[in-house]
Amino acid sequence: VVISHGARRVVVVGADAAGMSAAHQALRTARARGTELAVTVLESGRDTSYSACGIPYWVAGDVAAEDDLVARTAGEHRAAGIDLRLGTTAVELDLTAREVATDAGDRVPFDDVVLATGAAPIVPDWALDPAGRPVPGVRAVKTLDDGRAWIDLLGVRDPAPRRAVVVGGGYIGLEMAEAFARRGLDTTIVTRGELMSSLDPDMGARLREHVVKSGVAVHCQDLVDGVVTGVDGAVRAVTAGGREIAADVVALGAGVRPQSELGAAAGLPLGRVGGYLPDPQQRVADGVWAAGDCIEPVTRTHGNRVFVPLGTHAVKQGRVAGTVLAGGDARFDGVIGTAVTRFVVGDVHVEVGRTGPTARQLAGLGVEVDSLVTESTTASGYMPEAAPIAVKVTAATAGPERGRLLAVQIVGGPGSAKRIDTAAAAIWFGATVADVTGMDLSYAPPFSPTWDPVQIACRRLADRL
Amino acid sequence: VVISHGARRVVVVGADAAGMSAAHQALRTARARGTELAVTVLESGRDTSYSACGIPYWVAGDVAAEDDLVARTAGEHRAAGIDLRLGTTAVELDLTAREVATDAGDRVPFDDVVLATGAAPIVPDWALDPAGRPVPGVRAVKTLDDGRAWIDLLGVRDPAPRRAVVVGGGYIGLEMAEAFARRGLDTTIVTRGELMSSLDPDMGARLREHVVKSGVAVHCQDLVDGVVTGVDGAVRAVTAGGREIAADVVALGAGVRPQSELGAAAGLPLGRVGGYLPDPQQRVADGVWAAGDCIEPVTRTHGNRVFVPLGTHAVKQGRVAGTVLAGGDARFDGVIGTAVTRFVVGDVHVEVGRTGPTARQLAGLGVEVDSLVTESTTASGYMPEAAPIAVKVTAATAGPERGRLLAVQIVGGPGSAKRIDTAAAAIWFGATVADVTGMDLSYAPPFSPTWDPVQIACRRLADRL
Repeated sequence: VVISHGARRVVVVGADAAGMSAAHQALRTARARGTELAVTVLESGRDTSYSACGIPYWVAGDVAAEDDLVARTAGEHRAAGIDLRLGTTAVELDLTAREVATDAGDRVPFDDVVLATGAAPIVPDWALDPAGRPVPGVRAVKTLDDGRAWIDLLGVRDPAPRRAVVVGGGYIGLEMAEAFARRGLDTTIVTRGELMSSLDPDMGARLREHVVKSGVAVHCQDLVDGVVTGVDGAVRAVTAGGREIAADVVALGAGVRPQSELGAAAGLPLGRVGGYLPDPQQRVADGVWAAGDCIEPVTRTHGNRVFVPLGTHAVKQGRVAGTVLAGGDARFDGVIGTAVTRFVVGDVHVEVGRTGPTARQLAGLGVEVDSLVTESTTASGYMPEAAPIAVKVTAATAGPERGRLLAVQIVGGPGSAKRIDTAAAAIWFGATVADVTGMDLSYAPPFSPTWDPVQIACRRLADRL
Repeated sequence: VVISHGARRVVVVGADAAGMSAAHQALRTARARGTELAVTVLESGRDTSYSACGIPYWVAGDVAAEDDLVARTAGEHRAAGIDLRLGTTAVELDLTAREVATDAGDRVPFDDVVLATGAAPIVPDWALDPAGRPVPGVRAVKTLDDGRAWIDLLGVRDPAPRRAVVVGGGYIGLEMAEAFARRGLDTTIVTRGELMSSLDPDMGARLREHVVKSGVAVHCQDLVDGVVTGVDGAVRAVTAGGREIAADVVALGAGVRPQSELGAAAGLPLGRVGGYLPDPQQRVADGVWAAGDCIEPVTRTHGNRVFVPLGTHAVKQGRVAGTVLAGGDARFDGVIGTAVTRFVVGDVHVEVGRTGPTARQLAGLGVEVDSLVTESTTASGYMPEAAPIAVKVTAATAGPERGRLLAVQIVGGPGSAKRIDTAAAAIWFGATVADVTGMDLSYAPPFSPTWDPVQIACRRLADRL
């Protein structure tokens, strides 16, 4: 690829979902408009475009090889005309000189810069030794390096670990607990609140019942505050509220925080949890764009800033940034917090879906609501695949939004989780619970009762309002 | 239950999904309003509230007992205060005297009457012997009596049937072919056009490839025009275009037609295929209501009348009729033609979802469209459950509706079909393909690629428009 001297220069910091979506989309848009771009991507690690969400499944053994988690290799990016520099950390963003300084001593000039630096796991002090190094056996679950370390810890070490503790009861915590349990480890989840704080506590408790049935222990309202190590320095137990919980390995699933140091040092404003605050076109300053897990996007429904680190938003935001910086038109339409996961261990198969704010978030927004839980089945009751499903719906009860569907949460058996998309679509388009009741959703005995469970819940709530 | 002399009298004709929904909802609404209703239901058969859609799964062996297909028994209906008269056929609707005459010689007076007489299978002439009786071994799949007959034919007869022919390649045809094949019969589907005419032919052909892989033969563009019987009078083969196809049993899946003779004789107007034509409150005349498979509802998107015999519409329409006739407020918001099914035989598991008009229907409506097919996977590509999924999206290309999502069709592996509900919701709320691209849909490796397959298809079409 020949870059002419006058091509507009784009520097992307971070080569995962958001950054590479932006890079490719910028090139695509420029090509469509007949203009030229020179795109450089700086990546401090050695991996590009990998699925962090897939790591628990790699650890569990579902994914055979780490390469499978890489959507596009460095070679593929370069073949598309991108100057991709791996092992290169951006250390300074100079908005006056319009340059990014790297740890290799380069100063890379830009007309546009895309900040796509992602999020980093929150590592508690107790997980580090006095020298600031990770305690052996204690590890987060974020990068492919983490994944490799987990594969080594579980598969290579002799004797093999028998007991696992997972710190945190969110998505990564639940998925790592599944991975450990499926590998035969005695597994304990320790979580500060109820399991899965992105659910309302009543729905989290329903999930917990299933998880506990699988043999995984769940300690709620409990905080890990220390670690006990052996003579070899490796973890032997964690401490929580004075008690010890034996652990040969400890997975850190205590959340992530936006990696925004680069922009912060350059004076860019940050949000409540330290994320960049882009406008709907992903712009944070003139010629400066941000996308992915390092930002705090707005919600579509209430316009408030939230932190939702998720690959599906990263690729969409990256695409918007790439389109707009190359002269095209696009906007990110906000998030509503749709998410799913599952927990499959032995005979237990439970799925979770959620969309919209939690009851607690709605209270924080000052929205008056009513909600109810409906229990139904995923298929017609007489079919062998019919599994229990609980659907919680929440609607506004006051003001001009009265009757508006605000949130749906689902906990149920196989076939439950993906139904959340119907609710997400309804919320996305501003539907009331009464609107949902009438929708023409698909029905056939293997797939649904005559009344879809989400519709039953909405109908009941509509009748009550 | 004591009915006071002055209670408003409601007569419901037909005791399946639509009729019983109307009956119960009328009582519920009246109770809520503090009024009184006397509800009589006339049913010519001996079964109430059964799932016709479940019969193929009963024949296949998925459903253990016929009672499982009955959502509510006659006893339960009566306990709710309904005067349910089984084995009683309404033979005349007298709109002047406000009476329904029965074959028992009664004349049942009404203030409101609900016509919920359902649909009857289309039985070709060749399926009847010269005396007008069904040829032994040839049978439709509509009533519980049909189901019982199929269980007998397949399980009791000696020698057991070895070869099955299914006439018609729609939902019932496909599901009966699955049932026969899973019971070990050599099975052939004979269909006038492509398999599953509710799909566009290109998507029907994709489905057919999977079906054929399972060992079920599919004869497209072929019309069964006769039957060959043995000395015992039972079927031995069908004829199609001069050829014989051997058959020990023949399932009729050639469609159904509204049973509207009662209202037709009373002068009520009928639609193109003979269905009643209710307004959005299910009213066909003053104090006369119709719901379920005997009507032709309007589409939400274009307002044209269509015939969509499906339990999920029947219960919603019955609920509307019951609410309104009892003094409440409700309306049926139309259909968009959402439907799903699957075909699971041996290693083959294919699912189908569709919503919106077919290409042919859109041409008939004079709508200019563009469409494309995207191939993706149901889960992240590296997950063991990732199955191929093909998504066809169609959007309007002209007029004020330019860019509007009109139709989506899906053919794919496990986890494909129910995704149609996302598309159905988007169409329901009038979304453009660009709107769908930005939606916050759920993502996790076991459930979806980072970009949802429906969104990929919509994004590609939006880019092209």
